[in-house]
Amino acid sequence: MKKKIPRSDCPISYALDFMGDKWSLLIIRDLVFEDKKFYKEFLRSKEGIATNILSDRLKKLEAAGIVTSKIFAELKHQKEYALTRKGLDLIPVLVDMSIWSAKYDDGLAVDSAFVEKVTRDREQVIKNIEKRLA
Amino acid sequence: MKKKIPRSDCPISYALDFMGDKWSLLIIRDLVFEDKKFYKEFLRSKEGIATNILSDRLKKLEAAGIVTSKIFAELKHQKEYALTRKGLDLIPVLVDMSIWSAKYDDGLAVDSAFVEKVTRDREQVIKNIEKRLA
Repeated sequence: MKKKIPRSDCPISYALDFMGDKWSLLIIRDLVFEDKKFYKEFLRSKEGIATNILSDRLKKLEAAGIVTSKIFAELKHQKEYALTRKGLDLIPVLVDMSIWSAKYDDGLAVDSAFVEKVTRDREQVIKNIEKRLA
Repeated sequence: MKKKIPRSDCPISYALDFMGDKWSLLIIRDLVFEDKKFYKEFLRSKEGIATNILSDRLKKLEAAGIVTSKIFAELKHQKEYALTRKGLDLIPVLVDMSIWSAKYDDGLAVDSAFVEKVTRDREQVIKNIEKRLA
């Protein structure tokens, strides 16, 4: 959103300052579920993010301490992005969004085994995702 | 967001079509945590939503089946809004956002007893919120 929205002391409003932008959360999704790490990989996502928006959101996510980057010397000195602890702690939100969507649109690419696993043991699913990313 | 973003079959992208707008989720927050039901009540929220944005988002949330409304005859025929089952199923996402924010900004209005309860038994907290809204 272009306009700066006045902050309140509401925790949901605080979370939305970082997440209340579709593109930011899609980048986080790519990091969590798609094993993407590089600018060019994010650019190839099926929602078709524009280059200027992608650069802007990566900068904002880094400034917010959700994402961190380091230069990957082996690959033409590209920046390699990863989630910080603060970013990893957003995994529960993403998992819940997926489950919600799977319930209300069965045309989506949600693995039914994934839904079942979350229903059975959500905490374990979250731990497994974190382990994979570590 | 003004621009219509091309849909993908990703469940997180689907969820963001409804939630990836700060104002929509703040209206849902008002319904869930602030016991607000009327246009004028939403308008008074501390983030300062504009009248045209509020009208637009209420319409969109209703069209998406997340919110429903009925005429409240006793109160000058105002529309009384409530969450549908689809809307109630967003409570877990809101709870997770609150917990995330409480962890990363202790200046926010998050009841520490709430955080503790969620840590101990998240499912029960969600059930209790639903019961209160029923």
